[in-house]
Amino acid sequence: MENKVSVGLLGLGVVGSGVIKLIENHQEKLAHQLGCSVQVKSVLVRDLEKNRDVNTNEIVLTTNPDDVLNDPEIDIVVEVMGGIDEAKQHILKAFSAKKHVVSANKDLVALHGPELQDAANRNKCDFYYEASVAGGIPILRGIVDGLSSDHIQKLMGIVNGTTNYILTQMDSEGVSYEDALKEAQELGFAESDPSSDVDGLDAARKMAILGRLAFSTAVDLEDVEVTGIRGIELEDLQYGDKLGYTMKLIGYANFDNHELEVNVQPTLLSKSHPLASVKNEFNAVYVYGEAVGETMFYGPGAGSLPTATAIVSDVISAIKNLRLGVTGNQFIEPHFKKELKTPDKRRGQYYVRLYAKDEAGVFSTISTLFHEREISFKRILQTPDKKHELAEIIFITHETSLENFRNALEKLKDLDVVLEVKSYYKVEGDAVT
Amino acid sequence: MENKVSVGLLGLGVVGSGVIKLIENHQEKLAHQLGCSVQVKSVLVRDLEKNRDVNTNEIVLTTNPDDVLNDPEIDIVVEVMGGIDEAKQHILKAFSAKKHVVSANKDLVALHGPELQDAANRNKCDFYYEASVAGGIPILRGIVDGLSSDHIQKLMGIVNGTTNYILTQMDSEGVSYEDALKEAQELGFAESDPSSDVDGLDAARKMAILGRLAFSTAVDLEDVEVTGIRGIELEDLQYGDKLGYTMKLIGYANFDNHELEVNVQPTLLSKSHPLASVKNEFNAVYVYGEAVGETMFYGPGAGSLPTATAIVSDVISAIKNLRLGVTGNQFIEPHFKKELKTPDKRRGQYYVRLYAKDEAGVFSTISTLFHEREISFKRILQTPDKKHELAEIIFITHETSLENFRNALEKLKDLDVVLEVKSYYKVEGDAVT
Repeated sequence: MENKVSVGLLGLGVVGSGVIKLIENHQEKLAHQLGCSVQVKSVLVRDLEKNRDVNTNEIVLTTNPDDVLNDPEIDIVVEVMGGIDEAKQHILKAFSAKKHVVSANKDLVALHGPELQDAANRNKCDFYYEASVAGGIPILRGIVDGLSSDHIQKLMGIVNGTTNYILTQMDSEGVSYEDALKEAQELGFAESDPSSDVDGLDAARKMAILGRLAFSTAVDLEDVEVTGIRGIELEDLQYGDKLGYTMKLIGYANFDNHELEVNVQPTLLSKSHPLASVKNEFNAVYVYGEAVGETMFYGPGAGSLPTATAIVSDVISAIKNLRLGVTGNQFIEPHFKKELKTPDKRRGQYYVRLYAKDEAGVFSTISTLFHEREISFKRILQTPDKKHELAEIIFITHETSLENFRNALEKLKDLDVVLEVKSYYKVEGDAVT
Repeated sequence: MENKVSVGLLGLGVVGSGVIKLIENHQEKLAHQLGCSVQVKSVLVRDLEKNRDVNTNEIVLTTNPDDVLNDPEIDIVVEVMGGIDEAKQHILKAFSAKKHVVSANKDLVALHGPELQDAANRNKCDFYYEASVAGGIPILRGIVDGLSSDHIQKLMGIVNGTTNYILTQMDSEGVSYEDALKEAQELGFAESDPSSDVDGLDAARKMAILGRLAFSTAVDLEDVEVTGIRGIELEDLQYGDKLGYTMKLIGYANFDNHELEVNVQPTLLSKSHPLASVKNEFNAVYVYGEAVGETMFYGPGAGSLPTATAIVSDVISAIKNLRLGVTGNQFIEPHFKKELKTPDKRRGQYYVRLYAKDEAGVFSTISTLFHEREISFKRILQTPDKKHELAEIIFITHETSLENFRNALEKLKDLDVVLEVKSYYKVEGDAVT
């Protein structure tokens, strides 16, 4: 057996540099675990002249992808270039050349994961992508191996660090969404165009990947219903806080009787929920298994070295398989058929904030409308705003179907006494009293 | 390849019953993952006549261990009988018969894990024991596979549900240690003889196992310094709370430059620490890796079905290896040499509560004594108790060596003005302000 395994990288940004550093710094542990040394042989870059913050003296930098993909010495290709089409073509080519692939590319895996997995299987290659979800947290392994014996019923994830940072700052500092976003941009937690984070698209991609592995079914990106946090109002966080809840952008997925529900939306989470204490840029995934009950995996969702640990752990898994002669044995194809859950089967509690006329009988009119749809209230807050002669009413419903709630909400807007429905959010768990 | 794998059980208590239920209920998922069915063929029991809460119609119950250990049809033996000597002999016999073993027995693995691993390696057998630490949480996989690429520097665990339940109740209900223990016993969270839990021995066993895997070094049970929570006073929890800390029984381990520190002790944990929100009977393990930074694995630490999920996940891993022909390839032997860290190298912050004479200059005498040993104070609380003409003084030090702290504590007791040192605890993290 060879005593050295060569790795090729596609891309040399912050994560790629982290991979090189980690492999260089952990030679002793790698040799102990694998019985061989691991070497980064060549790296595909866009610009050969660019200054790198990592030592590349013994590494071939190249602008020709074939130098990596067609090099017979390279057994494992690590894709950290990002983007969709080019990365996909490179990975497919790597599989054709019988190379194992580790990718950190959530956009690509969310969109084309099943097709890539298929190509891997056909070529008896390994395809790992732990780093594509929740950076340094070994959550895909947790689901695929650690909970392999259980029936996972529900996933809830804080899988986007930018939005969690913004919501945490709004909550703890009492600042507006706009100010918190600006601060996040200054600190480098948010991009100058923050759309993919704040509109929930990034979280949606991760939920599609998580759902596929947790439920062994073909979750497509378009199955994920998405609402972001753009323009969320501080008042709703503050009322939530008063009622025992904290606002988080939650990726939610459940699967039972072949019926699937996956969405990403701002959610008022009971302060006693394990996810409620996940602050700032940290990520966590809460997994509810039929037998195991509540588990949670917590850690950094991004960053050069945390993401690199997930990638190198995947490289180690692939090398172990390679040395044992058992590559290409992933049992993670979609297996169960799926249907999207219709709104009458989607259950939830809801928070509503509205302005109504400040007159007798208003609340009774509103509550009758909800009761007629079999929705009862769990908590109510009513504050008269004397200056404007209106009342601000906040209530949280008991659990109901999404269909009934949507229906009640429509009718609510038509009521004469209701001036404006300011906001409504899903609620998870019971408030701490 | 066979299309059925047979499993034998040693023991049929609550966990054994959970294993049978889980395997029975998950036949479809197992077949999908493994390409074969899994069957519990026979079970070693003490009493053939006992009523079981699980269907054993198609299972052979026997009082003769050889019916399991010498049955050539059985490939995998699951040890859930508990105890040390008998269980150990059975497991060694299983390895000699080339059977793979899954054990949930933390006492046995903590005491004789390396010897058993050795026997497994000699016979090219798999030996898995995920369920021995933190029940349903896949923490051993998290460390061995998920963070395989990283250098783990520090572990902190809430790995005993009984003591966490007692401390949570004291904290939230304001009850004494004795009352909380009594309640835990009534609810079945504590045994009638609670020694092994409240004195920290159970947690120590789990820390020895965790330390071995995290640091790839031979952590022995006697390396673990243990202080339990027996007789802990509500006052210390309340003062801690006032200062921004919550009391937890923390298993702590760190390893650097081949120097090891492992202990279990009640610790005042900053409320902002991820472990601080782990309540009641839940367990969690916090892992600090050089590259990944902070991660945490949270879930149920005990219970029939959660523990059974860990066991069956191990069975699945062993069957995958079996079908791929790669059993006995665990790379988890102790590799690095170790020395125990001496007290001058063990760093920490400390909380002290004492009674002193209520007279001028007392606090200055005390603080001078600490400053002479290069220990400064971070927080101070002083309450005069007029009735008894004494002062209750509480302080938290900045980080110092254990040697300096012990030395100062000794001298403190000799001071004329100090009437009694009531308590002292290790402190982790910075208080939430």
